[in-house]
Amino acid sequence: MRYKLTIEYDGTTLLGWQRQLDGPSVQQYLEEILDRLNGFHSEIVSAGRTDAGVHALGQVAHIDLSRQMELWKIREAFNGNLLAQNAPVSVLEVEAVSDDFNARFSARKRCYRYRLLNRRAPSALNRSRVWWVPVPLDIEAMRQGASFLIGHHDFSSFRAAACQAKSPVKTLDKIDIFQDGDEIIFEVEARSFLHHQVRNIVGTLEMVGDGRLQPEDIKRILKARDRKAAGPTAPACGLYLTRVLY
Amino acid sequence: MRYKLTIEYDGTTLLGWQRQLDGPSVQQYLEEILDRLNGFHSEIVSAGRTDAGVHALGQVAHIDLSRQMELWKIREAFNGNLLAQNAPVSVLEVEAVSDDFNARFSARKRCYRYRLLNRRAPSALNRSRVWWVPVPLDIEAMRQGASFLIGHHDFSSFRAAACQAKSPVKTLDKIDIFQDGDEIIFEVEARSFLHHQVRNIVGTLEMVGDGRLQPEDIKRILKARDRKAAGPTAPACGLYLTRVLY
Repeated sequence: MRYKLTIEYDGTTLLGWQRQLDGPSVQQYLEEILDRLNGFHSEIVSAGRTDAGVHALGQVAHIDLSRQMELWKIREAFNGNLLAQNAPVSVLEVEAVSDDFNARFSARKRCYRYRLLNRRAPSALNRSRVWWVPVPLDIEAMRQGASFLIGHHDFSSFRAAACQAKSPVKTLDKIDIFQDGDEIIFEVEARSFLHHQVRNIVGTLEMVGDGRLQPEDIKRILKARDRKAAGPTAPACGLYLTRVLY
Repeated sequence: MRYKLTIEYDGTTLLGWQRQLDGPSVQQYLEEILDRLNGFHSEIVSAGRTDAGVHALGQVAHIDLSRQMELWKIREAFNGNLLAQNAPVSVLEVEAVSDDFNARFSARKRCYRYRLLNRRAPSALNRSRVWWVPVPLDIEAMRQGASFLIGHHDFSSFRAAACQAKSPVKTLDKIDIFQDGDEIIFEVEARSFLHHQVRNIVGTLEMVGDGRLQPEDIKRILKARDRKAAGPTAPACGLYLTRVLY
């Protein structure tokens, strides 16, 4: 029996989605509970392996259970265990899916949000939830720069060295940038992303926002197909996997 | 020279505003910096002494400096020190005020927000920022119950035993209750509050929301002028001091 899980987590103290030897991960927390439900080791497969410090509001994963269970009982089994361990992970929803559903390969679209706090004073309440940039940023310039990235491109300039994707060519569907109180929000959507692609895009657009780059420089940087041409990787703490569409 | 400070803090790891012997407080963090600026011990006076675990988006306090300083330099002196200590406190704004301004006694209105997470799954991202109530709540019933509390009343039923106010009679200006995604938000405003008044009101309205009380019971509870007549104190972690008006 295959089930689809929608998962929220606070990445601050996690080493990311994927199981690591040297600290807690979302995969490890969830698989330990899954193993007890099944009575043997089984794997949980997610839509994306988020990095250490990255958060999720709507990560999606699938599991196979050896027996049928009521959906609410699966959710409570996970959440009861997670709460007891004080794990920063919560299962929001459980749905029954057919055996050919694959959280990773069936995904049509992945939606990320990046939160940047743009004010002089540092954050007290959201220190590990936003990237704090104290200098004023020009949103309109960042929007113009972002427009050159929409569509089908070779994103080598925004790709981490460790990226395991077969091709650097991806189709970016959307980059919306807007103000929300003291924060500047980036909403980025694509079928799939290269490793660090969203954070490298935000790190480069921030340089457009503060004037170190012009919007048109983004065109040149994209064409260079060279990671060294783009800006720095924005911090993990501002990034949220918000939704995965199937 | 008197200055008005607007302050944000994450109350999770703090023992509250007021200096305590057994752990960190907002007052202690700020006075230690103030003492270094002045070269002698001086007190910081706030609009309200929030409890352990309670947060602030816009606490207000006043300080006296022995010499005139540029406003941005005062802010940076505080924030540089607070960041270096990794203190969950940030000074958002510094304004020069006249000597008769008193953060506590000049306040015309104090505005609080209470965040209640109303969904089956616990929070991963906001565990120490909201009160999690997994059973469905009837917002309209809570609004009706709240309406009996607006105005000039003896609030003894909603007053903590430790409250030091001279009189239990207060004027409640506003209780707005609305849905925001998975959360139910309470916005409460008054010139001043009794100890635990907001949390006791929310804890009692929650019982109206889940049907254990009827909206009209609030009238009876208020009339009883007895703390035992009302519901429990809602957890500190959901409460935010948002604004103080002068």
